[in-house]
Amino acid sequence: MIIQLKDNLSETEKLAIKKKITELGYQSTEVKTQKKNYLICIGKNEVDIRMFGQLKGVADVHRVNEDYKLVSRKWKVSDTTIDLGDGIKINNGAKTIMAGPCSVESEDQIRDMVSVLKKNGVGIIRGGVFKPRSSPYSFQGHGLEALKRFHAVARETGMKIITEVMQVSQVEQMYPYVDIFQVGARNSQNFNLLSVLGEVDKPVLIKRGISGSIDELLQSAEYVFSSGNERLILCERGIRTYEKAYRNTLDLNAVPILKEKTHLPVIVDPSHGIGIRRFVEPMSLAAIAAGADGLMLEIHREPENALSDGFQSLNFEEFEALVNKVKLLYSLL
Amino acid sequence: MIIQLKDNLSETEKLAIKKKITELGYQSTEVKTQKKNYLICIGKNEVDIRMFGQLKGVADVHRVNEDYKLVSRKWKVSDTTIDLGDGIKINNGAKTIMAGPCSVESEDQIRDMVSVLKKNGVGIIRGGVFKPRSSPYSFQGHGLEALKRFHAVARETGMKIITEVMQVSQVEQMYPYVDIFQVGARNSQNFNLLSVLGEVDKPVLIKRGISGSIDELLQSAEYVFSSGNERLILCERGIRTYEKAYRNTLDLNAVPILKEKTHLPVIVDPSHGIGIRRFVEPMSLAAIAAGADGLMLEIHREPENALSDGFQSLNFEEFEALVNKVKLLYSLL
Amino acid sequence: MIIQLKDNLSETEKLAIKKKITELGYQSTEVKTQKKNYLICIGKNEVDIRMFGQLKGVADVHRVNEDYKLVSRKWKVSDTTIDLGDGIKINNGAKTIMAGPCSVESEDQIRDMVSVLKKNGVGIIRGGVFKPRSSPYSFQGHGLEALKRFHAVARETGMKIITEVMQVSQVEQMYPYVDIFQVGARNSQNFNLLSVLGEVDKPVLIKRGISGSIDELLQSAEYVFSSGNERLILCERGIRTYEKAYRNTLDLNAVPILKEKTHLPVIVDPSHGIGIRRFVEPMSLAAIAAGADGLMLEIHREPENALSDGFQSLNFEEFEALVNKVKLLYSLL
Amino acid sequence: MIIQLKDNLSETEKLAIKKKITELGYQSTEVKTQKKNYLICIGKNEVDIRMFGQLKGVADVHRVNEDYKLVSRKWKVSDTTIDLGDGIKINNGAKTIMAGPCSVESEDQIRDMVSVLKKNGVGIIRGGVFKPRSSPYSFQGHGLEALKRFHAVARETGMKIITEVMQVSQVEQMYPYVDIFQVGARNSQNFNLLSVLGEVDKPVLIKRGISGSIDELLQSAEYVFSSGNERLILCERGIRTYEKAYRNTLDLNAVPILKEKTHLPVIVDPSHGIGIRRFVEPMSLAAIAAGADGLMLEIHREPENALSDGFQSLNFEEFEALVNKVKLLYSLL
Repeated sequence: MIIQLKDNLSETEKLAIKKKITELGYQSTEVKTQKKNYLICIGKNEVDIRMFGQLKGVADVHRVNEDYKLVSRKWKVSDTTIDLGDGIKINNGAKTIMAGPCSVESEDQIRDMVSVLKKNGVGIIRGGVFKPRSSPYSFQGHGLEALKRFHAVARETGMKIITEVMQVSQVEQMYPYVDIFQVGARNSQNFNLLSVLGEVDKPVLIKRGISGSIDELLQSAEYVFSSGNERLILCERGIRTYEKAYRNTLDLNAVPILKEKTHLPVIVDPSHGIGIRRFVEPMSLAAIAAGADGLMLEIHREPENALSDGFQSLNFEEFEALVNKVKLLYSLL
Repeated sequence: MIIQLKDNLSETEKLAIKKKITELGYQSTEVKTQKKNYLICIGKNEVDIRMFGQLKGVADVHRVNEDYKLVSRKWKVSDTTIDLGDGIKINNGAKTIMAGPCSVESEDQIRDMVSVLKKNGVGIIRGGVFKPRSSPYSFQGHGLEALKRFHAVARETGMKIITEVMQVSQVEQMYPYVDIFQVGARNSQNFNLLSVLGEVDKPVLIKRGISGSIDELLQSAEYVFSSGNERLILCERGIRTYEKAYRNTLDLNAVPILKEKTHLPVIVDPSHGIGIRRFVEPMSLAAIAAGADGLMLEIHREPENALSDGFQSLNFEEFEALVNKVKLLYSLL
Repeated sequence: MIIQLKDNLSETEKLAIKKKITELGYQSTEVKTQKKNYLICIGKNEVDIRMFGQLKGVADVHRVNEDYKLVSRKWKVSDTTIDLGDGIKINNGAKTIMAGPCSVESEDQIRDMVSVLKKNGVGIIRGGVFKPRSSPYSFQGHGLEALKRFHAVARETGMKIITEVMQVSQVEQMYPYVDIFQVGARNSQNFNLLSVLGEVDKPVLIKRGISGSIDELLQSAEYVFSSGNERLILCERGIRTYEKAYRNTLDLNAVPILKEKTHLPVIVDPSHGIGIRRFVEPMSLAAIAAGADGLMLEIHREPENALSDGFQSLNFEEFEALVNKVKLLYSLL
Repeated sequence: MIIQLKDNLSETEKLAIKKKITELGYQSTEVKTQKKNYLICIGKNEVDIRMFGQLKGVADVHRVNEDYKLVSRKWKVSDTTIDLGDGIKINNGAKTIMAGPCSVESEDQIRDMVSVLKKNGVGIIRGGVFKPRSSPYSFQGHGLEALKRFHAVARETGMKIITEVMQVSQVEQMYPYVDIFQVGARNSQNFNLLSVLGEVDKPVLIKRGISGSIDELLQSAEYVFSSGNERLILCERGIRTYEKAYRNTLDLNAVPILKEKTHLPVIVDPSHGIGIRRFVEPMSLAAIAAGADGLMLEIHREPENALSDGFQSLNFEEFEALVNKVKLLYSLL
């Protein structure tokens, strides 16, 4: 059960509500987001929620049986739109494309990329500077300095940046240079990181875990939301199965199911989702056809020379052709 | 390596070719399909295949390193079209839709269905009479008599029938009443059944196994092809993973990968692939967008009263809306 | 619900019982095994089963909510022992070892093997003559003639034979030469084959499917049992997962769980379960420690020269050492 | 390739070695652990490693092709023993048992537990104070204060403590109160945390990821080792598969495979590995029989009243019976 509190609620009123909750055998957690105040109530008894609707200080009450509450569409029926400023929005009707290199390599690379993105009407650039790698001896990204240069070019050209944050201590460092914090698949259940990102006033994109369930993804989002940050984006990026013919099994079933379960935008990353460059286009179109709100794509001016993930990055011509097909497809559906 | 033999090859020529193959350390299997004769050569040595091209009686030679040979696109570059007669073809440009009930229930049901299918330009009706069920106490289908009645209605109305064959002894019984034999996921590696279907002059649709790999599906097709029957259709129907939010994980990655690996048509079954009625439409569109040559759909006039799989069957209105969207999507891509 | 009928039940009594079942909203299936007669009742209503206990002709009644009934330990609490004659029994206290080559290769090979088995007190020899292989071009076993020679040696030496049956038409052919019919992982849900084996008066060992669930294995066993054959053995042989460091993931969790759910003997096949020769011993001991009733092992006098599965077959010295450790372990637990 | 440097190596010698490495097309990473100095060399060329053996300052050279180097048994053949002081060692011949509650609840609980552990010769107590939970509304552990009280009791009674660390900022806080830092399955690829734990002079136990591969576990260990900490323990705790009959699929295949690949101790957690109390004993024995160096067990004086994971915790009687069986089994193998 979610009880949304009135903005002008008095302490006395709040205490009365909490007393009632306890009497009914529920435990409550107070959640104060950047927008509103809630009491999330967990319990096993059946309760007629109308008895809360009449209490002073209560704005609204919803029954949500799932383990996730505030991210549930049972609580908020209308789609959540993420406004990044400068007219760039996610889940606002049109499909959002986020594209860029796996790793930020050089300023030159970024400038080249930005001109391609702008030409194709794409306002969000992705690019990693902290790269989670299975081996300690693999390239780990160019770090904060690269992010600063990345950001300088982006600001100059009006682009928004999404980049991966790997640990709590990076959040503050990265904050001035980031428009969307990305939580990678390996950190999808790094609950401390999620909680800290809940205290940040910038949007967060959470990737599904390597073998994360759909419910776990929603609960990870609930960590961020219940810590205060309502501006969340979910991302399907493929799961781990027995099949060896590709990198990951892109789970497009997750798209309509997530869209029904949550009010948050759902983005698909077909680059990781299949991991083979020439198949990124069909899987991108499939994702849009399945109802995804957008795509996250790896692109590179010379994929064969990329420092990481070149085998799954589109070159600029492939990217442009794909964007055009996505627009056409979207106009149709 | 595949050596295609000339039609008018003499026995002496064939012996000379086989002698050469043996000398080079290869083992050969003679394959005589309803169309042509081949020698499939398996071996570990590196051979310059041009030395075969010059032998008398050899029409063509191709190197195919995969475990599957005749179904490989390395062997046959152009798409295989399946002609069912009466102008009904699969993989001939347009997208093929096969639709019908999970189980054939009554003549009345079939007549109803046929009128909906014809109205929407669908020429192939699916319907099970032998149902593989995990429990011996579940409904197992109405059997051969139901198929005969099903066939009578189909013939009268010009529809083609696809239905599942579960065992070798059914092949001959079912033969007069079937246009496409379907091999279900649980029989995807029933190699005896596949071999017998290789001797039949009607097309065969093979579903991917419950946790079958893409390569295993192609090798199962190779069983049928190498036993003589080149008229094959592959079907992705979802794989088994840890995710519990839906019935199976529809693996749309398999679509572009299969289309690259093989010249055979690739069909998707979103009804089993997600297993939840209201999500069949988005997954159908996603399948088409990923490049599938067609769809296999479960429909029912009253899904809530179906004898089996009602929770994943579309009703007629939903089906009609979907067909229209598929046509629109196809016209675009 | 399972109603066990008295042996001398009259037709009138049976009709009265069935009438009562129908009145209570249940559907019944009559099951006549080689030992007894049962009515398996499926329904959704809650029923006080005592009202059946009082009916004439009823020997016993048990509530079994699972989809499998007759193989459930809720129905039959005591372990089922399989008596193969000549003093060779499965699940009769001691641990049963079945060992032999993946494929029967030659009479000489079998004679060698038998002397090793007898020396180590092993009474059951395994050996394939029909081999299910993913590729049609792989070695498929030496067939029925090999089985006849295999059987001649086994009879002469007092050994019992277990070998895989792949299709219905082989059951009758193989019958005179087989002591236990083995159903392989790929045929674990070949329901027609299972039903036919239910009509045979020889024991059947069913392997778990490649990604079969524990419940599906029990339901497959129910197919055989409800078709008349109570002499069943279940076999865990590894499941398919994402891990690539070995062939299959041997699921030893399945052992204590199966032992609780069913009264049937549970055997483990560590040769397929890990697929790497030097690890067969630790996994065999682990299987016994987990509570398995026995082991099925691939052995070969020269594993490096085996026609199939040599990389997972023990040589005779390794086998002998393992048998001794199993005996020691068993004496302890 | 791993080059172990001499302790008294001069800077000039090191530079000469590094120059040689670069010339041969390798990249090197300098690793200084609490024990020794290494150069880890990554490259694609084939190199005769003897040319390094002759350079001044080189103590030893080993070829290791795997992505993990320092944790490989190719580098260090003999088993690594972890000495916790006060005579408590891991992987020193006998089997190590670590047992305790899922969560530290009260001082009283811990005192009770300690007396049971000591009576049974167990010197390491586990107990969580920071609990990673899928839902933000679930019990998250009693935190640092509970750890302090836990530690006080442990010191007083001579017990060693293993407890889970969830984030970098906890490492320093927890350091005075912990004997072994545990990295949980969800943090198995939290590379920042692993690197920081590499700088700590206390042992680290790393659990395999929820669907982590064996190689990924070894690479995670390599992160810690290459950051300076050689005192590592690996823990198999079950992987995520499609099977629903239990909590996780305990992968005992991983035990002999890890023991071959690495010199580090390998512990098994059957409590999480099957997740059902009455099956913890057989899976514990199976783990030991498979070659595990020890067990990590959840126990509780009243499992039915535990704050978390009660359904998989042994009570004291069950625990005592298990320890006795493990000792007996170990004396045998």
